[in-house]
Amino acid sequence: MTTITELIQQTRSYRRFDESKPVSDKTLIKLINLARLSGSARNVQPLKYMPISNPEHNCQVFPHLGWAGYISDWSGPIEGERPSAYIICLLDTTIFEEGNFDLGIASQNILLGATEIGLGGCRIATISPNLRKTLSIEDHLQVMLVIALGVPKEEVEITKIDPNGDIKYWRDKEERHYVPKRNLEEILISPPSLSK
Amino acid sequence: MTTITELIQQTRSYRRFDESKPVSDKTLIKLINLARLSGSARNVQPLKYMPISNPEHNCQVFPHLGWAGYISDWSGPIEGERPSAYIICLLDTTIFEEGNFDLGIASQNILLGATEIGLGGCRIATISPNLRKTLSIEDHLQVMLVIALGVPKEEVEITKIDPNGDIKYWRDKEERHYVPKRNLEEILISPPSLSK
Repeated sequence: MTTITELIQQTRSYRRFDESKPVSDKTLIKLINLARLSGSARNVQPLKYMPISNPEHNCQVFPHLGWAGYISDWSGPIEGERPSAYIICLLDTTIFEEGNFDLGIASQNILLGATEIGLGGCRIATISPNLRKTLSIEDHLQVMLVIALGVPKEEVEITKIDPNGDIKYWRDKEERHYVPKRNLEEILISPPSLSK
Repeated sequence: MTTITELIQQTRSYRRFDESKPVSDKTLIKLINLARLSGSARNVQPLKYMPISNPEHNCQVFPHLGWAGYISDWSGPIEGERPSAYIICLLDTTIFEEGNFDLGIASQNILLGATEIGLGGCRIATISPNLRKTLSIEDHLQVMLVIALGVPKEEVEITKIDPNGDIKYWRDKEERHYVPKRNLEEILISPPSLSK
């Protein structure tokens, strides 16, 4: 396998997919198992997961999702480039009332696992409240995140932040997607000098 | 390299280390770079990181940390088994007021990267407010998490949750650490049946 550094670098947010290539339920469950094995604050493990891979279910889920907030002239992938599967991440509020930290860990495991097998995905947090009804999700389960998955059909590149400090991702005319990341110097804070 | 599944399985929370084995600042910065490359909600990237690897700094940090909340008769690792390094994770509140989701992603990258090079670590969120003063951390930086790092000197095993549903981790007489994880059946929610 590649190193974890390479795998992390390749794990970008992909929003256009080759919809002709399905993702099986078995694959989704393997990815959910990676989330299961990860750390959890106080080991409470309040997250649950609904795998969605059937084309009919996919069609039901898609209209409830908000895509790429910073790209205002794009309302999401066209037919043929939509995700082949989803993992609906749910917080079981009978277990704990908060789960954002765990969700970060779990979703990263899922996306790293996806990258390793040639898939890619996108974390979507802009979700219509009607998704709950569409999927008959019980009241005690809070919809936290939808992870869209498929075989990526776009290129995504990390780039530097321009001098005005704008962190918004953007696309060029060839539909190549660029994600500005702060450089190391900007995120490192030095410890105080030692007395001696 | 191992597969991501193996790497995730090996990435457990370690709380006892071989303190005679140092971790360099260079290594910490490589791990922080993995956090930098990860996804961030709305790509805002509000997290900053202070690497701590000097023994004098380590001695200053250690007393401010709370260890293993569920193991009430253990107040933390003894001398010789303490972490060789720390990464202090900070939220830059001038950038954004919240960062728990990003912190989950970033800390998972750091710990996976640590596992790959034979290190292990522990996310510590129980932190004395005095750590800020000790490390001269500026007011606009909120201390979110301390990741303790070193060469692990204990064994940690995933186990099933017992029938009473207790998720508290525990240790046996040989100081082996067990972490109960919910099984797959418990965390999977089925989508609704299809109409046809």
